[in-house]
Amino acid sequence: MIEQKQLEASIAKAAADVRANNPLAGSITNTVTIDFVANAQLAVGGSAAMVYLPDEGETLVAAGGAVYLNMGTLFPIYEETIPRTAAAAQAAGKPWVLDPVGIGIGSLRTKLLSELKQHKPAIVRGNASEIIALAGLWGLEGTADDLSRARGVDTADTVEAARAAAIALARYTEGAVVISGESDLVTDGHSVVISHGGSALMGKVTGFGCSQGGVLAVYATQTDPFTAAVAAVNHYNLAGVAAAAAADAPASFKVAFIDELFRATPEAVAGNSIEIQEA
Amino acid sequence: MIEQKQLEASIAKAAADVRANNPLAGSITNTVTIDFVANAQLAVGGSAAMVYLPDEGETLVAAGGAVYLNMGTLFPIYEETIPRTAAAAQAAGKPWVLDPVGIGIGSLRTKLLSELKQHKPAIVRGNASEIIALAGLWGLEGTADDLSRARGVDTADTVEAARAAAIALARYTEGAVVISGESDLVTDGHSVVISHGGSALMGKVTGFGCSQGGVLAVYATQTDPFTAAVAAVNHYNLAGVAAAAAADAPASFKVAFIDELFRATPEAVAGNSIEIQEA
Amino acid sequence: MIEQKQLEASIAKAAADVRANNPLAGSITNTVTIDFVANAQLAVGGSAAMVYLPDEGETLVAAGGAVYLNMGTLFPIYEETIPRTAAAAQAAGKPWVLDPVGIGIGSLRTKLLSELKQHKPAIVRGNASEIIALAGLWGLEGTADDLSRARGVDTADTVEAARAAAIALARYTEGAVVISGESDLVTDGHSVVISHGGSALMGKVTGFGCSQGGVLAVYATQTDPFTAAVAAVNHYNLAGVAAAAAADAPASFKVAFIDELFRATPEAVAGNSIEIQEA
Repeated sequence: MIEQKQLEASIAKAAADVRANNPLAGSITNTVTIDFVANAQLAVGGSAAMVYLPDEGETLVAAGGAVYLNMGTLFPIYEETIPRTAAAAQAAGKPWVLDPVGIGIGSLRTKLLSELKQHKPAIVRGNASEIIALAGLWGLEGTADDLSRARGVDTADTVEAARAAAIALARYTEGAVVISGESDLVTDGHSVVISHGGSALMGKVTGFGCSQGGVLAVYATQTDPFTAAVAAVNHYNLAGVAAAAAADAPASFKVAFIDELFRATPEAVAGNSIEIQEA
Repeated sequence: MIEQKQLEASIAKAAADVRANNPLAGSITNTVTIDFVANAQLAVGGSAAMVYLPDEGETLVAAGGAVYLNMGTLFPIYEETIPRTAAAAQAAGKPWVLDPVGIGIGSLRTKLLSELKQHKPAIVRGNASEIIALAGLWGLEGTADDLSRARGVDTADTVEAARAAAIALARYTEGAVVISGESDLVTDGHSVVISHGGSALMGKVTGFGCSQGGVLAVYATQTDPFTAAVAAVNHYNLAGVAAAAAADAPASFKVAFIDELFRATPEAVAGNSIEIQEA
Repeated sequence: MIEQKQLEASIAKAAADVRANNPLAGSITNTVTIDFVANAQLAVGGSAAMVYLPDEGETLVAAGGAVYLNMGTLFPIYEETIPRTAAAAQAAGKPWVLDPVGIGIGSLRTKLLSELKQHKPAIVRGNASEIIALAGLWGLEGTADDLSRARGVDTADTVEAARAAAIALARYTEGAVVISGESDLVTDGHSVVISHGGSALMGKVTGFGCSQGGVLAVYATQTDPFTAAVAAVNHYNLAGVAAAAAADAPASFKVAFIDELFRATPEAVAGNSIEIQEA
């Protein structure tokens, strides 16, 4: 089980390195929240680029330090783009982040998510139902019947109910898994970190999950997947609390949130309230 | 002709039910305003999910209480996705909302809009030129020459000029039709409701029409099409007035508007200034 | 070399004409910043419409006074849409604006940008690396090796380093070229205008470049390419300074910026600080 002081020091260093190095993390992501993903990546200190075509995905892998694959709004060309980009990242030894949003909707999404198992994402991020569904689809925990438990993009499960699924996924990928919820859970299969903060208003605006995926990829360019995951989740929880202090309705909250992502210091990101548990 | 007190009571109940039930209304909508559509749906109390592929559209119909088809930025795959999704909604007896934005631009849009006639949308929403053009295309009122009267996404006609077209459309679909304008017109082919409010700044920001389509679908999950239509239009007019009191330029107005969608009480939505007329 | 008083008078007239005429400039643009492009076009007084399909691009050329082609997030259908739209604009004698964003990423982008040379954009806009890369690709200045000097969508070069490339491009197109940077450079191949202002926060939000492309197209509907280019660049620099006075973090800055685009008077746009130099 990881030691808290050491984790905090690693997070502070990662956050400072992101600011110093302005790392590029390309994305293939949905059209609903694509602007939020890019602006969140920029606000924390990274750089963003989004593409749809197969060879462009491969180019982004080569140009950046990590890549983010979000399974929202699929286009037909994704049948080629998603596997080729994930394979390129794996071949290059670069971390990639998977957001299995919408898992259970449509045949292409299921096909792609099944294929992605072999390419082992460094970080998987989803809500509780999505994490349970992915672990079931990959045959790691639960059953393939869990595929349809999400309702659209919403969760029907608590974070705690998805804990075993997250641990199983992390042990398979040898990376990190994030479950978003009231408090968020991050695990590398050995330790579990519960990160507190955020705001209920995050559920009243689209894209907090998707954009966190992009920020996870930015952090993954600078440190190991588990440290990157806790850093990004802390950064979101911290900014969520600060934004909720400034705004009490969704659209002004979103503006305040991105501003607070930008304002957060590495020390404040590292010092966000967490608990460390045995997996 | 509907009685005002009864309509107001139905609207208040619908607005309260949306808040209580957080209903999902999926969308196939354009990439320009897709984020605004989702955030407006969330702000009024609903849930949002957007897709592009044919079987995903069908899945959204099954998962939600209504679906929204917006004809902006068409992709080639829409040749399959749009008719299959509308047919699935019709087969399932679930309401679907049509926004014929861009009617007259390109051959695929004309082909799709022609095919959609048979699937009878529960609610049609457009500006005056779009409503006139659709009634002409469907052979219900006016002529097919009206197809090209819109200029891009802007209207060249007044709401009153499109009144007969709206009534003809509503009588054909046995649903409701909304014409957006300075004051908005809603009709079920028997009664006409004129809803007042809003702000001229709504014309200086993209997406007030598109996002209203998504909110119409959210309301249509909880009540009949005509009540849903007046409720959504009232909700927009109310929030527009409140936002204009808080902001005098487009981007801050948009933020304030979404905040006010979120803040509006069911009673205030029901009490927005309307006139009821014979169709 | 153009005379400053005359240029300022032309800019003031163009800005006033945009407000008076609400001109339509259609776009084929990326999904990341498409909402920002439309809202910036509306805020300065224009009208916006976005499409993806080939015959829709041609229709937008016919319906509007200019068209904007932005090479971000390419879809497969762009292989037809982009050349046909540019050819239609050229055939109609209507100005079109090219933003070669992402130049060097993927084979389709290189193919399309190569083909576009023959259709002579009225205005080219990019950051320094993009302008150098385009001049190299078109064989006008530098070498084709310059193609990969941009990193994703970021620049690796200074505005001054791209000056010769911009002049070469402008002489070839007989239009105008804009290099975005700390101060922006505009040239028609004979005169060079350096426009001051803006804010470092513009680099912390996605879409200031893309949306300026849309505004360039709006201005190009009302005046010659060079005047349009200086007007749009001045408008952005002016609004950037005003927004930075109102907001110190990215998301609130973006809101303030669009508001300031809307508030800027023609006289203020014309009076933004510039220097005129010999090319």
